[in-house]
Amino acid sequence: MLQRPPAEPGMREEDVDTPALLLDLDAFEHNLDTMAALLAPTGTKLRAHAKTHKSPVVALQQMRRGAVGNCTQKVGEAEALAWGGVPDILVSNEVIAPRKLARLAALSRIAKVAVCADDEAGIAAIEAAAEAAGLRMTVLVEIDVGSGRCGVEPGPPAVALAERIAASPHLIFGGLQAYHGSAQHKRRPEERVAAIAAATDGTRRTVEQCRQRGLDCAIVGGAGTGTFALEAASGVWTEIQAGSYAFMDADYARNDDPPPFRQALFVLAQVMSAPRAGVAVVDAGHKALPTDSGMPLVHGFPGVAYARAADEHGTLLGEGVPRLAEKVRLVPGHCDPTVDRYDWYVGVRKGRVECLWPISARGAMA
Amino acid sequence: MLQRPPAEPGMREEDVDTPALLLDLDAFEHNLDTMAALLAPTGTKLRAHAKTHKSPVVALQQMRRGAVGNCTQKVGEAEALAWGGVPDILVSNEVIAPRKLARLAALSRIAKVAVCADDEAGIAAIEAAAEAAGLRMTVLVEIDVGSGRCGVEPGPPAVALAERIAASPHLIFGGLQAYHGSAQHKRRPEERVAAIAAATDGTRRTVEQCRQRGLDCAIVGGAGTGTFALEAASGVWTEIQAGSYAFMDADYARNDDPPPFRQALFVLAQVMSAPRAGVAVVDAGHKALPTDSGMPLVHGFPGVAYARAADEHGTLLGEGVPRLAEKVRLVPGHCDPTVDRYDWYVGVRKGRVECLWPISARGAMA
Repeated sequence: MLQRPPAEPGMREEDVDTPALLLDLDAFEHNLDTMAALLAPTGTKLRAHAKTHKSPVVALQQMRRGAVGNCTQKVGEAEALAWGGVPDILVSNEVIAPRKLARLAALSRIAKVAVCADDEAGIAAIEAAAEAAGLRMTVLVEIDVGSGRCGVEPGPPAVALAERIAASPHLIFGGLQAYHGSAQHKRRPEERVAAIAAATDGTRRTVEQCRQRGLDCAIVGGAGTGTFALEAASGVWTEIQAGSYAFMDADYARNDDPPPFRQALFVLAQVMSAPRAGVAVVDAGHKALPTDSGMPLVHGFPGVAYARAADEHGTLLGEGVPRLAEKVRLVPGHCDPTVDRYDWYVGVRKGRVECLWPISARGAMA
Repeated sequence: MLQRPPAEPGMREEDVDTPALLLDLDAFEHNLDTMAALLAPTGTKLRAHAKTHKSPVVALQQMRRGAVGNCTQKVGEAEALAWGGVPDILVSNEVIAPRKLARLAALSRIAKVAVCADDEAGIAAIEAAAEAAGLRMTVLVEIDVGSGRCGVEPGPPAVALAERIAASPHLIFGGLQAYHGSAQHKRRPEERVAAIAAATDGTRRTVEQCRQRGLDCAIVGGAGTGTFALEAASGVWTEIQAGSYAFMDADYARNDDPPPFRQALFVLAQVMSAPRAGVAVVDAGHKALPTDSGMPLVHGFPGVAYARAADEHGTLLGEGVPRLAEKVRLVPGHCDPTVDRYDWYVGVRKGRVECLWPISARGAMA
């Protein structure tokens, strides 16, 4: 259920209840400004991914700096954004359930909405929803550019689906979804360059083959925080879908050449037990800090490791662990699932709580 | 924020929206009955752990079968239970923050509440909260019986804290918290027997030394789903704190001698992309099914593995993967963090939705 906020505006950071999701507003705004400045000379637009932030408050700040809108993975996320004032949303994922597609059709009356397909049956399901709602829905074809997850092969299989969409009186062909997820966290830059070079070839070829059939790819979307500079420079992608850049996390920081953004997202935790020398147990375990991409880091304690995560306990080990009752900032291993554990961002600046932003799409998995 | 329920009572299971947290009510009731029957001859009481189920609806069903109350790890969980009608709650964990202890003192006016300490400073903090509220609070001493996390050493260090509590006009010494967390998932039964034998020695010694000082351990609490039969048979523990037994998960099923309970908890997911032969991608990734204890299992598809979890995608591989748009039951890797991702249990029996139970303490981390 919805949790009460752990802080009030004006409060000092050390008085915030724990665990709490802190957003360092100076670092966050720096990251938004930096991305806008990096993309401006390329002509490639930003359509930041809301699966990271789950909040129209954040989306509108991204749009104020030039983003064309947001992506989501789920219809429920799209609803939270549109109902919060975001006017242009791409569900960068397949949606197959008629109940979900009916919701998406309803949503497309109040916002510009598009969705992806990688199968004839998926297109037919979207077509049925659009026809039932009495409107036209925009569909992008997802191509598999190297991750081996969803998406058809680039080239003729993708073009065939594009033609199927364009031929429907209930649908609009919107372009290509071409995201290389597994390239984002490759540690060595040359691995990322090679992966995106291959993705570029397949995507460019598909765009050209579509054009030969008279089909314009208005959107060619993809890229994440680990590779966006490559897609933006390629001349093929029109929109960058990075999400983590706004917050950053411990996993992106482990890339050999970390992206040029500051750590803005933290979980504030408190030491609730310090049973032996060199051991401190904090009140934030893996329910507070999912460990799918590794353990959190202990900010400001270089000799201390967050060594073990249990449901509600995090065990810190090392020289100079924080003392009993001390509060510490933890850097999440992975920002996306961490945000999704909380109902509120506690925005802090210069040691004070400045704002509480609701995480409107928290838990929006459907 | 709070999510809408994915189902309505009376609906067929195959019409439930995905992802959804399904509770197979026949299996769930079997598990509750089985635990009550196993503990009855031992004389050891059940105080089931609500960190697993997060719901007073479940707690009251456990109590109807003889449980004395519930444990929680967090004050917010204790609030959700007490406000939902659970009359007897042990916070089986240290609480050090004055703001949280003030809430716990307030709660002890409407329910029987106890909390743990493993440090003189922690006891002083509880004492200050009790004095400020004008009531007496019950405190258990947590001892480290082998997990190496929180807790003082058994024997004299624990007895010294017990005497400190008993000497306070604002506190009541409630007994010992003696939980061996890391023993629960040891795969071989002889490893669990050895771990609990050592825990029994330390716990029995501490109880006896307390008694020699005139201090009665009214509660000696501990044990989980992996070892409860050992603690219940020891004659030392008075209360068993198992939680997972009600639901079960893939990790407990990997023990060499799995506990005698049925799988009652599932995540219903839908195949949203089937891009290649032998591959199906479902709409439930690690945000829907945390992977801290390994991957989920695909129920009813013995040749199919849930091979990779991304934020919102689960990739199924193998012979005979489910087809596009098919819905499948997934067995969570770890029930506790999985439940905490959802706002609603969808209770199902014989293929129909029977009830929707709110997960009142979902996200209650503070």
